[in-house]
Amino acid sequence: MSTRIGILGYGNLGRGVECAVRQNEDMELVAVFTRRNPETVSSLTDTAKVCNIADVADWKDKIDVMIICGGSATDLPVQTPKYVRYFNVIDSFDTHAKIPEHFANVDAAAKETGHIGIISVGWDPGMFSLNRLYANAILPEGKDYTFWGKGVSQGHSDAIRRIQGVKNAKQYTIPVESALQAARSGDNPELTTRQKHTRECFVVLEEGADAAKVEEEIKTMPNYFADYDTTVHFISEAELLANHSGIPHGGFVLRSGVTGWEKENKHLIEYSLKLDSNPEFTASVLVAYARAAHRLSDEGQNGCKTVFDIAPAYLSAKSAEELRASML
Amino acid sequence: MSTRIGILGYGNLGRGVECAVRQNEDMELVAVFTRRNPETVSSLTDTAKVCNIADVADWKDKIDVMIICGGSATDLPVQTPKYVRYFNVIDSFDTHAKIPEHFANVDAAAKETGHIGIISVGWDPGMFSLNRLYANAILPEGKDYTFWGKGVSQGHSDAIRRIQGVKNAKQYTIPVESALQAARSGDNPELTTRQKHTRECFVVLEEGADAAKVEEEIKTMPNYFADYDTTVHFISEAELLANHSGIPHGGFVLRSGVTGWEKENKHLIEYSLKLDSNPEFTASVLVAYARAAHRLSDEGQNGCKTVFDIAPAYLSAKSAEELRASML
Repeated sequence: MSTRIGILGYGNLGRGVECAVRQNEDMELVAVFTRRNPETVSSLTDTAKVCNIADVADWKDKIDVMIICGGSATDLPVQTPKYVRYFNVIDSFDTHAKIPEHFANVDAAAKETGHIGIISVGWDPGMFSLNRLYANAILPEGKDYTFWGKGVSQGHSDAIRRIQGVKNAKQYTIPVESALQAARSGDNPELTTRQKHTRECFVVLEEGADAAKVEEEIKTMPNYFADYDTTVHFISEAELLANHSGIPHGGFVLRSGVTGWEKENKHLIEYSLKLDSNPEFTASVLVAYARAAHRLSDEGQNGCKTVFDIAPAYLSAKSAEELRASML
Repeated sequence: MSTRIGILGYGNLGRGVECAVRQNEDMELVAVFTRRNPETVSSLTDTAKVCNIADVADWKDKIDVMIICGGSATDLPVQTPKYVRYFNVIDSFDTHAKIPEHFANVDAAAKETGHIGIISVGWDPGMFSLNRLYANAILPEGKDYTFWGKGVSQGHSDAIRRIQGVKNAKQYTIPVESALQAARSGDNPELTTRQKHTRECFVVLEEGADAAKVEEEIKTMPNYFADYDTTVHFISEAELLANHSGIPHGGFVLRSGVTGWEKENKHLIEYSLKLDSNPEFTASVLVAYARAAHRLSDEGQNGCKTVFDIAPAYLSAKSAEELRASML
């Protein structure tokens, strides 16, 4: 069974999906939908059409799963409930606090029209969430830790760029090694997000800008930097482009727990990711769940799902028999 | 919904299940079945009855899930297909090569009688298998690595104990740090099980035994030790009891893969376990899947399943809403 994929939104994530589809023989990219004039956009995939987002309904019967690659702040809360009326859809909605509301909206629309919508797919939410769930189910008495990085935080980079005198900037979130070791120790320490991470900033100044003033403004910025151990490096635009144009990320999910009649035995479950490209990895997870959406839909299921609701075998191109023989 | 659990086979694993059931409020241990005279066996759980395995059919309607805690070599191939005729069952069958055959036997019996049988539950097979599947589905182009340890290998310890002049012995399988680093490097080296692990043996000699001869016999033992870097320490029985009576284990599952149009970006997915008690951790996984078996059975499903077939949410005592709000 081949899965016909559509991409809605053709930025970093959309291009990542295009690359991931190419790595899966049972997937085929049939169309890319953009808000821009399609004639100004060219896809990497020769056989895929580039279309305006306004024409998406014409593709109703030609796409098995639409992967919605918009942003969580304003795009996805509107797009996912809207387009699940036409297609099975996948999104990477990552505003953790608003997931219940988004789920309800997508679920209602998906059930009305008999489609599947899988939301909050990626690595956090996504693979990290799955690891939290499995580890908590196995070790009900214990403590969870999530560390992010080393990786680029788009939000923090943007915050620096809004400072007067800053031409360009990149911010890395870095897990604190001693905090990671403390989480692994089995002593179950209390660690705040702040104790667990430091922030490193690479900043290109506008000509004539006051470096000391910019550094002070970054380091005292409330919420973003004030309570963190923050380092600021001033570099040239050329250096920023040469050494900091990637979008790496990653992190660690740990659960430290106990078993035994007297809770005398300690256990540590650790999952970690080290990613050269955050959007391409997220896209790769989206594509695996697109396969699952297509299969679930073919089985007659509908409604909103998350990674918690999908049996792992649905993600793989291999048959159940092959999986049991080769991976169990 | 409370799940009434039975334990069949009351060794290290069975006792681990008993401890794990106690850590889960929605679980209740109702009976332990042993081949021994029940009057000579006492369980830790006051409210659980100890019964002879011959009387198991009497409990048909009083147990929601039977956790079968026998060995993979001779017990489980017979017991799981036999007892799935009376109960929903879980086992930890770990002879990887014989899983397809075991699956077929359990599936036929489970379908005939309308029960669920979940086989090969634990950490390898089990959580390691799940991580191999997820990582392969996300990164179809890449390489898998599994490392075991540091931990006690029962099979290797037994092999040493069979040597003349050996009174007692414990063998640890240890991952080679440089091989682990090579697997993490992204260079995707070929690494054999032998290159990835060393073996460390703690041996208690019988009085008058020839240490040099025993060491030679261990180090040249085909299959078990001959091709490994093996270290042998001779210690007293007291020292063995004091420092080596635990059953720790663990290991690492890694997938190193690429994404991008030119496959230019590297990614590393790593899952690891560090376990003070191998049987208690395995038991904790079995109990989580017992919860799933009970729910699936209540939904009217039947047949043989593996960890690949079970949606993660079934493992958790939390509702779908709670999971989305707290863990996604």
